[in-house]
Amino acid sequence: MTSSGSILVTGGAGYVGTHTVVELLDSGYDVIVMDNLANASMESLKRVKEITGKDVPAFSVDLLDKGAMRNIFNKHKDIFCVMHFAGLKAVGESCEKPLYYYRNNVGGTMSLLEVMQEFGIYNMIFSSSATVYGAPSYLPIDEKHPVGGCTNPYGKSKYFIEEILRDLCNADSKWNVILLRYFNPVGAHASGKIGEDPQGVPNNLMPYISQVAVGRRNELTVYGNDYDTPDKTGVRDYIHVVDLAQGHVAALKKLTEGCGCKVYNLGTGTGYSVLEMAKAFEKASGKSIPFKFADRRPGDIASCYGDATLAAKELGWKAKLDLSKMCEDLWRWQSMNPTGFNKEGSS
Amino acid sequence: MTSSGSILVTGGAGYVGTHTVVELLDSGYDVIVMDNLANASMESLKRVKEITGKDVPAFSVDLLDKGAMRNIFNKHKDIFCVMHFAGLKAVGESCEKPLYYYRNNVGGTMSLLEVMQEFGIYNMIFSSSATVYGAPSYLPIDEKHPVGGCTNPYGKSKYFIEEILRDLCNADSKWNVILLRYFNPVGAHASGKIGEDPQGVPNNLMPYISQVAVGRRNELTVYGNDYDTPDKTGVRDYIHVVDLAQGHVAALKKLTEGCGCKVYNLGTGTGYSVLEMAKAFEKASGKSIPFKFADRRPGDIASCYGDATLAAKELGWKAKLDLSKMCEDLWRWQSMNPTGFNKEGSS
Repeated sequence: MTSSGSILVTGGAGYVGTHTVVELLDSGYDVIVMDNLANASMESLKRVKEITGKDVPAFSVDLLDKGAMRNIFNKHKDIFCVMHFAGLKAVGESCEKPLYYYRNNVGGTMSLLEVMQEFGIYNMIFSSSATVYGAPSYLPIDEKHPVGGCTNPYGKSKYFIEEILRDLCNADSKWNVILLRYFNPVGAHASGKIGEDPQGVPNNLMPYISQVAVGRRNELTVYGNDYDTPDKTGVRDYIHVVDLAQGHVAALKKLTEGCGCKVYNLGTGTGYSVLEMAKAFEKASGKSIPFKFADRRPGDIASCYGDATLAAKELGWKAKLDLSKMCEDLWRWQSMNPTGFNKEGSS
Repeated sequence: MTSSGSILVTGGAGYVGTHTVVELLDSGYDVIVMDNLANASMESLKRVKEITGKDVPAFSVDLLDKGAMRNIFNKHKDIFCVMHFAGLKAVGESCEKPLYYYRNNVGGTMSLLEVMQEFGIYNMIFSSSATVYGAPSYLPIDEKHPVGGCTNPYGKSKYFIEEILRDLCNADSKWNVILLRYFNPVGAHASGKIGEDPQGVPNNLMPYISQVAVGRRNELTVYGNDYDTPDKTGVRDYIHVVDLAQGHVAALKKLTEGCGCKVYNLGTGTGYSVLEMAKAFEKASGKSIPFKFADRRPGDIASCYGDATLAAKELGWKAKLDLSKMCEDLWRWQSMNPTGFNKEGSS
């Protein structure tokens, strides 16, 4: 297919970013990557080239550096949409350094939007999160569920950005913005060449499990085995990152219709428990995942899964890859890259 | 009384800012003013000197200019608290220019907080608003009322800043922050030398009424005469700006106790309708205020008034000045300064 211009992908060297870049390239779009490499490396984009055969212009630029951003927009006059993945994402760290998180996520997005306005670019797809819903008041969560009940600065920063984008669209009909609320992205590209590469101790379940499987961690700690769920452990809506990436390509088509501000959940609609995930990963990897139970963590909830029928109806998108595929692909990535993109390893 | 250092007042040349500067000076505090003069003039601080006999160091500096802010903190090493009034405040304009509002109010506050951290200053009193409560779910509104239901970028910017400040206090016990949620400030200093000086058409009821009285506007438009209130017009909690200013001095004492993050309503607890306000102003001024009814404005609510008993209990503060005093003082200011601080006049 032909596209009407390039897509600028902020945070394009990160986990969801790289997978989306691959899907965009495979769909025929021209892509430019901007990433401050705070939480990623250019190695990931070399891998994207191995997968797609395409070279992607990539700039090591921070969202807070408006001058450097202007240089990119000046150099690439055909950018027609920004896919905005860049942002800090560690919940615990956000509680320790709230101002740093707000500055980077909210302040960074404001700078990006200001530069986009200067260059007359009014199309954005924003990487939001189901965390904006806070504790679910009903399940599955649809897009009409109340938002704003976030308890940590990371989640609030996503919510604040959503509100800023919504207000921009209300103020000026030139803006088209799609807010994609992710549930729990897992898995990796089927090639095993790109995947999630957390720095330090993983914050999320599946990277932790896969690091146990590959011998980087001793055992999994399961926080809470007294939840009101079938096996008493927490239930989440895990979605294959390639499905998620394809959701962005589907959203891009919607955006070109001049949609104003739209919101879509990207999830599978199905919840799996911590123990189900660990078992599925054991099966896919052939490795045993030792675990112990510990107390619930403050702020954690029993169950969270989404209703993604609106995305099916309006974007023609649906998650296709099942739990075993999520685990197989994650294991392929982890076993081919036991220390992630960094060949030296880290812990 | 003696104070342990200076108070930096951002937005100190504005309406609530100048009145607070007067009360601080009268209470023996050293004050430094910082204001970008976007919505104010240095004339107001000349008037402060006429009232108090004291010269206040004043800097024309924008919150977005961190270098200039650092210069102030470098020059005044004894600043121990920032009273943060600076911010854009026109609801309608905020809907038209949301990014500009978020940049100035939220981005500006982040810059201020960053500079404060650099200089090891962790005490702030923040000029918040009852608008953070959104549409009241019960009356009178106390501090436990849910927040975040704001429908315009101005109100959301106040709410976002509150959340950032709360998270800062949670992250680092060095921070002490008092969020003061104002109801509807009206009136002026009893001297008639300082008062509210809106640019262009006033957004608020009382400045509009007083401009009608002084002949700058033809008649008052009363939006909505079908509300569920005694006389069918909207009811609000008007508070004399001098009472409000004294609330800040009371909060300052609380702050020095190492209070963490505290929230107080500053209001009278009593609601008055639009027609009651107009009548009270007619009585105080001896002028007739012609008015016409028009449709409700979108987003307006029937009644809003606050419970200020927490401030009475914990700050030892209570609004003392009644409706007739609000109107008399407003009229003295308006009649002595028919075109505000600007002798040339404006409309």
